[in-house]
This record gives sequence, C-alpha cells and structure tokens, in this order.
Amino acid sequence: MTSAENFNEVPAHVWPRNTARQEDGVITIAGVPLPEIAEEYGTPVFVVDEDDFRSRCQDMAKAFGGGDNVHYASKAFLSKTIARWVDEEGLNLDVASIGELSIALAADFPAGRITAHGNNKSADFLRTCVREGVSHIVLDSEQELELLDLIAAREGKVQEVLIRVKPGIEAHTHEFIATSHEDQKFGFSLASGSAFGAARAAINAENLKLVGLHCHVGSQVFDADGFSLAAERVLGLVSRIHAELDAESLSILDLGGGYGIAYTAAEEPLNVAAVAQDLIAKVSEHAASLGIDTPQLMVEPGRAIAGPSTVTVYEVGTIKDVHVDDDKTRRYISVDGGMSDNIRPALYGSEYDARVVSRFVDGESTASRVVGSHCESGDILINDEQYPADIRTGDLLALAATGAYCYAMSSRYNQFTRPAVVAVRAGQIKPMLRRETLEDLLALEV
Amino acid sequence: MTSAENFNEVPAHVWPRNTARQEDGVITIAGVPLPEIAEEYGTPVFVVDEDDFRSRCQDMAKAFGGGDNVHYASKAFLSKTIARWVDEEGLNLDVASIGELSIALAADFPAGRITAHGNNKSADFLRTCVREGVSHIVLDSEQELELLDLIAAREGKVQEVLIRVKPGIEAHTHEFIATSHEDQKFGFSLASGSAFGAARAAINAENLKLVGLHCHVGSQVFDADGFSLAAERVLGLVSRIHAELDAESLSILDLGGGYGIAYTAAEEPLNVAAVAQDLIAKVSEHAASLGIDTPQLMVEPGRAIAGPSTVTVYEVGTIKDVHVDDDKTRRYISVDGGMSDNIRPALYGSEYDARVVSRFVDGESTASRVVGSHCESGDILINDEQYPADIRTGDLLALAATGAYCYAMSSRYNQFTRPAVVAVRAGQIKPMLRRETLEDLLALEV
Repeated sequence: MTSAENFNEVPAHVWPRNTARQEDGVITIAGVPLPEIAEEYGTPVFVVDEDDFRSRCQDMAKAFGGGDNVHYASKAFLSKTIARWVDEEGLNLDVASIGELSIALAADFPAGRITAHGNNKSADFLRTCVREGVSHIVLDSEQELELLDLIAAREGKVQEVLIRVKPGIEAHTHEFIATSHEDQKFGFSLASGSAFGAARAAINAENLKLVGLHCHVGSQVFDADGFSLAAERVLGLVSRIHAELDAESLSILDLGGGYGIAYTAAEEPLNVAAVAQDLIAKVSEHAASLGIDTPQLMVEPGRAIAGPSTVTVYEVGTIKDVHVDDDKTRRYISVDGGMSDNIRPALYGSEYDARVVSRFVDGESTASRVVGSHCESGDILINDEQYPADIRTGDLLALAATGAYCYAMSSRYNQFTRPAVVAVRAGQIKPMLRRETLEDLLALEV
Repeated sequence: MTSAENFNEVPAHVWPRNTARQEDGVITIAGVPLPEIAEEYGTPVFVVDEDDFRSRCQDMAKAFGGGDNVHYASKAFLSKTIARWVDEEGLNLDVASIGELSIALAADFPAGRITAHGNNKSADFLRTCVREGVSHIVLDSEQELELLDLIAAREGKVQEVLIRVKPGIEAHTHEFIATSHEDQKFGFSLASGSAFGAARAAINAENLKLVGLHCHVGSQVFDADGFSLAAERVLGLVSRIHAELDAESLSILDLGGGYGIAYTAAEEPLNVAAVAQDLIAKVSEHAASLGIDTPQLMVEPGRAIAGPSTVTVYEVGTIKDVHVDDDKTRRYISVDGGMSDNIRPALYGSEYDARVVSRFVDGESTASRVVGSHCESGDILINDEQYPADIRTGDLLALAATGAYCYAMSSRYNQFTRPAVVAVRAGQIKPMLRRETLEDLLALEV
C-alpha cells in the first residue's frame, strides 16, 4: 500500500525508466514535464516513454538471444508508431485479428516477421495472412487447420504453422486471465492426445508446414517454474512427434507471454533475464535428455514491453469525504477519465500506483479512493490507498504502468472521447494518436 | 438454465416484442429475418426493434403519469436515432457527459427536457448545460454547487438544480453496480446531514434554484421496496428543508433508474406498472403524513427501455470439445465478436439468453460455453448452458437483451471494428450506426 509519507517518492520499478522529479516537485518523463503535456494535449493523456519501450524490447532480445526470438504481442497496445519501434528494435510481431495485421502492414512492418494468433480466426484474416506472407500462423483448432490448408492451396502457397498446445498448467494469476489450464478456448490438449493428432494432421496437410509448437501459461506470471514445466511438457510432445511421425524437425518452441510486471511499489517484476537464462538452459538440457535438437525458443511479451513505458495523466476534479462507518471516512478523489480509458481495475480488480505529478504533496495520511467520472459506482481506478490529505482539485494525478490493455481496451462509455497518446523522448513530445473529438462521436451515424 | 429441449422456443419476456420464428426456423424481428440483416450488414450486428423501444417508452410514460416524468438514461445506449425516438415519444433525457449532451443536441433534442448527471462534471460540461438551457442539473458535490453558481452567474442565468441524495439503501444487486449505499462516489449523505447542508447552500446560492431531490438505489433492482423506502427517506429530507429553510416548494422527487429486466428465461422483469402504481400511492400517502405537497415523481430508466429492444447477431465459428475432467466435456462455441461488443459477462458476470436464429436445431443436450474471438481466455459471453449438439459453424447465434451497456461500452480490443447497429420496423431495416472499417482504426494516427 502506498503510504502518505513516501507519496512523493516515485517507485522506479513501476514508473517509466526516464521518470524524474524536478526540484519544484514536477515529474518529468524523458525530460518533458508532465504538466506541459497536460496543458498542450489535455487530460486524460497517455504518455509513452519511447526509450523505456525500446529498452525493454532490447532487454527481451538480449535475454532470449536476439530479436527474432521475441514477438511483441500487439494486443497489449498497437499503433503505427508502436509497430515501427518494434520493427526498428528488430523484434517480431504477434497479431490476433485482421485489424492488428492491418495496422502493422500500414506501418510497413514486414509480414515475414509477423505471427498470427486467435481461437476463431476469420477466413478473411487467414487469407490475408497467407497472401501477405506472415511467417507463422498458430493453429488453434482442427477446423482452422483444414480451412487454412484450403486457403493456402488456393493461394498456391505452403504456410508455415505452429500448433497451440495446452500443456495443462495453471499459472498463479487472476482466473480471468489464466490461459493454460484445460477448460479454456485456446489450443489443443496435450493430455488428451488432441495436440498430437493436430500435429499429424498438419504434417499430412499438403499446404501446411509444421515448424514448431506453441503454448502460453498465463498472464502476469511471477512464478517462473510455470514456463519451464510447460517447456518440458511440450518438448515431450516434440519428441513423440519425431519418433512416431514422418516429421521434419520442429525447430520452434514458442512459450508465449505472461511475464509479470510491477503495477504497485510492493510488487517486483519478473526478472526476465534470469528467467530466460534458466529457461534456455533447461530447454537445452531437456532436449538433450530426449535426444532431440534444441529448438529455437521464442517468447511473446506484450505487457512486459508496453506496460511500464506509459503513464496516464488525469486532472483531479471533485474531492469528497464520505462517511464509511462510525470511525472511518474515505476520501473520494475524482479524475477526468475512468473505466473508459482503464477498465482493468473494474474488470480484473487490478491495482495501480498513482502520484501527483504537478507538485509535492505532504498532507496527513488519508484513506483515499480514486474514482473516474463515469455514471457508474464501479468506476474505480484505485480502490483503497493512503494518500496525503492535501491532494486538491486541479492537481495532475498520474497512474503508472498503463501502457498495456488500457488504451487497447478503451471504450467511449458515457460518450467519453478517447485520450490522446503522446511519446516523449529526449525532451521532445511526439503525438502518436490524437484525442477524439465530439465530432468523432457522430462519425458512425448513418 | 437453457435446456436443449426448449432451445427453439424464444422466451418472449427476454427477446424484443416483435420477435417471431418462421416455419423454416428463421427468427424475424419486426418481420425482418435476422439472417437477411447478417447478410447485408455483416456480423456481429446489433438489431434494434424500434417498436419495442418505443413501446417501452410509452409503458414508462403511462406508468409514471406522463413522458415528462420519465428521463431516458442515455448512458445505456445513445445515438441520434435513439435521441429522436425518445423525443418523439415525449420522454425527457438524462445525460452524464458533454459527449452525451452533444449527441442529444445534434439530434435536436430540446435542451429544456434534458437533465445533467455526473460525479465529476467538467466546467465545460456545466457551462454548455447552462448555455443550452438544460432543465435540471443534478448536483453531486459541494464543489460542483459552487462552480455551477459561478458559471450560471457568468452566463446571467438562474439554473434549476436537484440535489443527489444518498438515502443509505443498498439494493440487492451486483456489488459493482449498486449505487445507493454510503461508501460510493455519488451524492450527498442523508444520514450525515450533508444533503441538508447542500440544500441550504443551493437555496442560498444566487444563481441556483433548488427544485427537488434525486436519489438512485441501484441497477437491475428486482425488490421494489428499495424504491419506496428511498422515497420515504428523501421525503423526510424534503419535509425538513421546508420546515427549517426558507425554501420554495421542492416540487420534484427523482428516484433514478434501476428497473430490472430479464436477461435469461429464468428471470422475470420488474413489473414497472405495478411498481409505479405502488410508488405513486406511497409517495402521496407519505407526503400527506408529513404535511407536505405530493411532489412530481420522476424516474430515469435506461436499461428497462433500451435493454430488451435489441439482439446481437453473431456468426458461429470454431467449435471445440474440451475435456474438463474425467466425466465432463465442454463444447466451446466461438462467435465472431466478444468482449469488445459485450463486456458485461466479463465485467459483471452477466448472463444472457442465446438462440440460433437461422434455423431449428434439435441435437442432444451438450454442456456449452459461448466464447468470443479475442485473444483472452476470459472472453466468455455465456459461461455454462445446455445447448443442442447440432449447433454448427456458420449458424447465426443471437444474444438477446443487448440494448443497454453493450454497444455503449464497446471497445476496439484486438483492433476489432465496432459492429453496425440497425433498427427494424414493419419489415424495414433502417441503419443507425455503420460498421467500423479497418480505415477507421487508423483515423486517430497522427
């Protein structure tokens, strides 16, 4: 829990790497004072520390032996600028819809470095993937396997594919975002043999080339053992495929994403470098023990790259002290956004770190709740923290680590217009996505 | 729970009033076959039964003694067409942001029949309300009261206001959408005396005219006692204000919304006519017993008008049988939308009634889950139902009662494009909002 005493200290492991506080208390990112951005672009506004984002791409590439082994999961946050950064940093890209693919291609991201995901890919999406020449399509069902084989045949191509395997591991994380247990929509079960069956079907399909296997253990994972256990199980399947089927080498082992980041000062992000080193060693050992070649290990971080790079700056509005029970009052601090720009607290119970970024505050410790401006009482951004009592209307309050699944899941609930997104680097502001206008709200009217 | 045996029977209390099934099994709304709409507008598509929507406006007006007493809560779903229907049916309109106000004004909805809500109204929103001449602004905090008085003074106007009171009643409903207990962001506490204080301040403010009180007991309320208890408590405050303050008559008692609708066959909607009759009688009696004039009773239904009018039609994609445990298999039925067009199941655990609308199905009963196409395992639309086993890829599956808080909260998660919204009436299709395109996804790029 944030305490009022250390409220002016910005936790470095949660905030963007180029965050600093000036002597006057104003917080800067990459040398740009956040109040300056709020003034120019209005609030709420998403501020992306470009060098933070790029440095996490570099860290991932270094940890996993090169950018070719790291796919940025674009569902976390995608715009043309983001696609260009990922390209320039030499990473590959994951897309999970024709919309994500379209944005990547509009940014001239090379299709040959794109992998396609999804439990229910449309024929249109698959066809576009094949035509544009995406490197891999991750097969998720028998129906898709047959459909893709047909589409590839029509296009006169052989499409490289991975098979998504459910290794039966349930990561310790929020129920709604765990994705590796059996009772879920993604992938083929390893235990039931359906993953093996899919591999055989893919090998036999004339216009598909099976080049590897894929699995994903969950989101916001902090227990690294899940990754290595999943890797071991999937390697066992690779070994069985080699032994029983007339398979060329399955050279790729894609372990998906899920690398946990720190949303609050109390959390510690997963040490990706250490996890990668351990994983690479274990995969190599286990492959050797199975008598198979060590596969190319791939990962798909989204949140771990985009999440910590970004803060959302709000302006504080109404402040209200609410009597909760006989000996408790709670201060409700309203900000000018809410569940339309960050649904995660309402949806997952997610926690965030918030700081006043326009000045020092040092009032007495007060039980506080940060709420949005939507006409819904569940519109809560920060449920229960101790904040200084001198936070006041007009202050700029920023939530950190909002780079993933905030703008990406944003809505126009209550006809709120989407905030602007700007990048900052070396003292410069570069707008990425403009703020929506009231005119935009009418753009779809027929 | 839906059973496979009655899967072809469409529950009339959940689906739009003009729903019918043809002899060939195709479901029509207002005489328009849903497959025809899917063919022309693609899927997913929202289909609004215009006469259903209008008839619920009429029912509400009749129940509460006239359209002037009924404010449609536009946060449930708003477009220019909706605003026009509400206007034509003689109802008033609630808005909770400058965006909602702008759409209403763009549809030429008379400002004099608009009420403004919100816990953190921007100065811009308040100013526009005053300038345009909205009938009432519902005051939610002391700060707002002072700000509005200032704004009204600058505009040379006296603004009629209500005060939002927390009567301290917690409706039996989902925690996230109950809004009448004390520990929440909206309103002034009755128990602590802050509501009385606000009334005094409003009466003393030179450019405000206090004309009534407002409260809201929650969402999806099925226990009508909550409304009358809230009314009694708020009337008590009216009586105290009359006794202790130099007040003109507070003529309005606005009891907000929350009238529960049936989302599933097992639920029964609140009988609004009966509740209204009871409420009107109780308010009148209680006012008499307090020796005050019977106030004008107002209500603010959103969901109860928009919700049942609309269905979302999806196309079934991938179907997958997943081994859950030793003796259980679950069928995963994927559709081509999901949490981007309906976040309510993921956000509130909401349930829905789904039917195949393109033909009869009559297979064996199968434990089924309807999931969306998003890259997230929590992307579930219907968690656990028994459906016939012969639902297949290409079938059109529709969810009913999606008129409220679905399109209104829609996102572009995974860069999905928003569905089209069409109205149907007397055999005709009238497009309301066009489907978003891949080009739209790039419209905000700078």
